[in-house]
Amino acid sequence: MSYQFDQDTQLQQVGEHQFKGTVSAGWNIGDNPNGGYLVSLVSAAIADCLPHPDPLSFTTHFLRPGVGGGEFHIDVDVVRVGRTLSTVRARLTQEGKTRLEVMAAYGDLSTPAGVSADMTLEAPEMPEPERCIPRTGELQNIDIALVNKLDVMLHPELARPGESEVPEIAGWIRFPDGREPDARAMLLFCDTFPPSPFGVLGVVGWVPTIELTVHVRRRPAPGWVQARFVTDDLNDGRMVETGCLWDSTGQLVAQSRQIGLVMRRD
Amino acid sequence: MSYQFDQDTQLQQVGEHQFKGTVSAGWNIGDNPNGGYLVSLVSAAIADCLPHPDPLSFTTHFLRPGVGGGEFHIDVDVVRVGRTLSTVRARLTQEGKTRLEVMAAYGDLSTPAGVSADMTLEAPEMPEPERCIPRTGELQNIDIALVNKLDVMLHPELARPGESEVPEIAGWIRFPDGREPDARAMLLFCDTFPPSPFGVLGVVGWVPTIELTVHVRRRPAPGWVQARFVTDDLNDGRMVETGCLWDSTGQLVAQSRQIGLVMRRD
Repeated sequence: MSYQFDQDTQLQQVGEHQFKGTVSAGWNIGDNPNGGYLVSLVSAAIADCLPHPDPLSFTTHFLRPGVGGGEFHIDVDVVRVGRTLSTVRARLTQEGKTRLEVMAAYGDLSTPAGVSADMTLEAPEMPEPERCIPRTGELQNIDIALVNKLDVMLHPELARPGESEVPEIAGWIRFPDGREPDARAMLLFCDTFPPSPFGVLGVVGWVPTIELTVHVRRRPAPGWVQARFVTDDLNDGRMVETGCLWDSTGQLVAQSRQIGLVMRRD
Repeated sequence: MSYQFDQDTQLQQVGEHQFKGTVSAGWNIGDNPNGGYLVSLVSAAIADCLPHPDPLSFTTHFLRPGVGGGEFHIDVDVVRVGRTLSTVRARLTQEGKTRLEVMAAYGDLSTPAGVSADMTLEAPEMPEPERCIPRTGELQNIDIALVNKLDVMLHPELARPGESEVPEIAGWIRFPDGREPDARAMLLFCDTFPPSPFGVLGVVGWVPTIELTVHVRRRPAPGWVQARFVTDDLNDGRMVETGCLWDSTGQLVAQSRQIGLVMRRD
């Protein structure tokens, strides 16, 4: 495993459906590991326990922040393995405390499951990656180690804190070392952009995710992945953000939705 | 408890966080109990176990159809109770087999949790309920006992099987016996309309939900609830449908997203 992402999500099996390893601090945002990275540790463990390869539905509850540099344990509970679908629960703990609770359904996206029709979400117009601006810590006024692990390029008109009229973030994402995207990486890519209210509200405080669900829709083609995240509703600090990812051929590859908290900056 | 919905979701406690009861056959669609009704049995059990009243995020995996008229058992696993948020898992079984697996986060929508801003989804224009057409079994060519338990009125231009140009269902919903909507009822109302591809594809076969997540955004005001569900993407039989509910004052009260299968009609 020569790619950084695969190195940083290596697991050691310690029992049936039980794994351990170390949370790299290289994916931190501020003092906490990125949520999508922690999800990727769990998805690595689940992949080892199921016959079906693709995360059709992957829900994570974030109970507590992770500990960068610390040991983690993952327990996978295979609820049901059917012919076309597997259902699974999993839990990531550090220092004896639950950090992530996961429930997911896996299937095989290469096998048709019913009717097809011409219904999809088209990718919006977007400046090419080289005309976008990189996600940096300076932009959000916080240390972001994550940007050394991922190329995250932002739509220039949506990445000006407090100057945008729409609560939307869009851009492009890829692994910088040439690792191509796959179904599992879509779980990561749905949680690695700045919070979508950022352009309207300006630099916001911590935006902890309560729950994030990702539906992987198609296996992505090689190349850049295009992303768009929109705040649907922000009410008393509780935000629902909806996202889409498209691959380099323009196909919709993932949809995401999360509920998170938008806190005041102290 | 004089209202039908409350009668049909009564539980008997049989242990700590353990409940049993009978699945009413009065909420069936075809031979199977409606998913939103089964969810409502679980939400009744969870409400009994947690200090926080409102389902902020409620994810259900539907592993097998329920059995109308049969006994059910529900086990609730309280994962964490924090100051502002509770996290919970639950399982509904019948005849010794898991039917529903739930993971949810509950909070208190009457307590602000952070920043507010003018970001929401507006209710679309829609004909008044009396100018809509009732959901009936005839419309979908299947017996629907559920329509005796709920008034479901459909936008007339979107409820003509195979004649619509957009994969969208919209309309109004309420309890027929005067029970007013509450946060818990939003979980039910998000899963009681015809499948959204129906207007485009015509009468489709069974549309089993794999996973449904509902975010309750505000406690609803009394009166009719307005609903809209759209098929975002249908690929090889796997559909993602996104929904919104608004109360009689026009406030967004819930958002939903599900992945389901669109099967061929045999």
